[in-house]
Amino acid sequence: MAALSDISSRRIKKLRRAMVRRGIDALLVTGYGNRRYLSGYRAPDMGIAESSGYLLIPATGSPFLLTDSRYQVQAAEEAPGFEVLLYRQGLLRLLKPLLADFGVANLGFEEEYISHARAMKLIDGCGEAGVRVRGVSGMVERQRRVKDEAELAAIRASVQLNEAVFAEFLPSLYPGMSEREAALVIEGLMRSRGASGPSFPTIVAAGENSAKPHAEPSERKIKKGEPVIIDMGLVLDGYCSDMTRTVVLGPVAKGLRDHIRLVRRAQLAAIDAVRAGIEARVADRAARSIIRDAGHAEHFGHATGHGVGLDVHEAPSVGPKTYVRLRENMVVTVEPGVYIPGRAGVRLENMVVVTRDGCEVLNHDTSFLDI
Amino acid sequence: MAALSDISSRRIKKLRRAMVRRGIDALLVTGYGNRRYLSGYRAPDMGIAESSGYLLIPATGSPFLLTDSRYQVQAAEEAPGFEVLLYRQGLLRLLKPLLADFGVANLGFEEEYISHARAMKLIDGCGEAGVRVRGVSGMVERQRRVKDEAELAAIRASVQLNEAVFAEFLPSLYPGMSEREAALVIEGLMRSRGASGPSFPTIVAAGENSAKPHAEPSERKIKKGEPVIIDMGLVLDGYCSDMTRTVVLGPVAKGLRDHIRLVRRAQLAAIDAVRAGIEARVADRAARSIIRDAGHAEHFGHATGHGVGLDVHEAPSVGPKTYVRLRENMVVTVEPGVYIPGRAGVRLENMVVVTRDGCEVLNHDTSFLDI
Repeated sequence: MAALSDISSRRIKKLRRAMVRRGIDALLVTGYGNRRYLSGYRAPDMGIAESSGYLLIPATGSPFLLTDSRYQVQAAEEAPGFEVLLYRQGLLRLLKPLLADFGVANLGFEEEYISHARAMKLIDGCGEAGVRVRGVSGMVERQRRVKDEAELAAIRASVQLNEAVFAEFLPSLYPGMSEREAALVIEGLMRSRGASGPSFPTIVAAGENSAKPHAEPSERKIKKGEPVIIDMGLVLDGYCSDMTRTVVLGPVAKGLRDHIRLVRRAQLAAIDAVRAGIEARVADRAARSIIRDAGHAEHFGHATGHGVGLDVHEAPSVGPKTYVRLRENMVVTVEPGVYIPGRAGVRLENMVVVTRDGCEVLNHDTSFLDI
Repeated sequence: MAALSDISSRRIKKLRRAMVRRGIDALLVTGYGNRRYLSGYRAPDMGIAESSGYLLIPATGSPFLLTDSRYQVQAAEEAPGFEVLLYRQGLLRLLKPLLADFGVANLGFEEEYISHARAMKLIDGCGEAGVRVRGVSGMVERQRRVKDEAELAAIRASVQLNEAVFAEFLPSLYPGMSEREAALVIEGLMRSRGASGPSFPTIVAAGENSAKPHAEPSERKIKKGEPVIIDMGLVLDGYCSDMTRTVVLGPVAKGLRDHIRLVRRAQLAAIDAVRAGIEARVADRAARSIIRDAGHAEHFGHATGHGVGLDVHEAPSVGPKTYVRLRENMVVTVEPGVYIPGRAGVRLENMVVVTRDGCEVLNHDTSFLDI
């Protein structure tokens, strides 16, 4: 078996310190992003019911990657230093003897990426064997919030490619194109330019559909003069990007122009507020108060932003109740929106890296500035 | 509020009978496929940590769709007859007063599509309010196993489109094309021909990669004479298809020909075994015993098949331990494979509808028959 990569080794060491603090002898890592972060193993899960594997990180010694035969070869290739073990009759049968070998008395498991049904089997099954099993959350995510140089480089590359795709797409947008067609073109460009794929289903929402913040692209044809929300991101080398623009074909009526300007003002206020040391909610409040003062409090129902990395939505959130303090090299989105049901919505989203005295906006696209 | 559609009404009625049998006053539906089956609401979940909503089905009266503001408009459009309520401060705050209004003493929730963390909050929070909360599984899935005429028609259309995409793709496969490129072309064709998208990430795995049953398409170039596993499916009108072919460019060496023939024999044996009334494991055994007798028992690590419908993997499984009896109008895959690590793998997959005295193979593509 090859040795752990330097990066895995460093990350696991840090995790182990947190395990000691929590009195955990071994941690079962259940989430895709955390698995990949610690081991390099890239297989995604096919939905909540189908895991592609678990890491078992004992307090000392070699870590394990537990998976099924479908992933045997991939796991061995992608996670050097992890001992790959296959479960043929369920996770529990494989896990119990391992825990006994290591004398594990307190097993932690990531409770946010495992179904309740599976977790109960784990708790009951290991409990019978005398192991105390406890759900934990956020241990690896907390580490992942602050990005290292290699991660920042990967995120920059992802953002840059995403913007290149947007720039290539934009001239091909024409009145009469359907939302679906537009999303298809965008995702096709992502893939042909080397992305693994979109980091989430691309949103193209025009006219009244723009008032649905998570609209699925429909057959509706895009018309001149209406807002078109394009929310797109891609995955490159595992790292996600996420950007939203609201564009208009042809002349922009005054009402819509004001609507876009309001959102842009809110976005700039939040970007201005971001710096290391503030609670994330302070940035949210900066955007939200501008929207509220314009009389649209109830038209901005989501958080101002979220972390981005191996997962397109990760810690920290930037919402009204996020008391977490921002730290240098966290990467978050700043994406206020104002949605007037049945009429029109506008959202603008950039990604920023938090710095000591502010933030660096990763996006360079300014296609909204001529509004 | 519009009335429930006939189809929702019928399905909910049936579900309520099962709720009564289990002593449940209200069921919280947490899974995408089940939500869509009962209500028509089409929003997928963005991973286990981000639900796009829950159905609350009380024993009598109008059902509810609980979601957040992002999905408000879509939910109201797609789920007529469901009262759409938005949670602004978490599901629990919205749910507790509702349960009190309905006098719910026993709440069931689908435990397989909710994270353990979220489930524990639900159990604890409702418990404080005096409601007994219990995880249940399979209630809606059980209904979904047997397809009605409209569902069968949708599945047939999905299979047909998938085969058309395969037929259009196949002539463009050439030596030197990378696995990734091939997968891109296939998924591009799916979308341009009207599918919502692939029903799972398309697998193109050549040479030694074909020995990984869930390989991710790589930059590896496809060579003449080696097995190329193409496992592809799409979603059309919500219904999934799933098909695997193993193709070879140029002449096929005898060893590989025998390998493919073995898998095809196993597949035909399982197809022969399928009929209403048998336990699903009998079909699995038919395929598995042929592979075992050929000395490859350890090279066939997955189940012979699985149900397909709104989800690409749904009940029933067709594995060595599936005691469930097959029934008329269930739709399952038959997909044995033989994978020799580091060397070569072959899988062949068709979808069948179970009939009273056998099954109908939904696939018409026979590109493997000339081997």
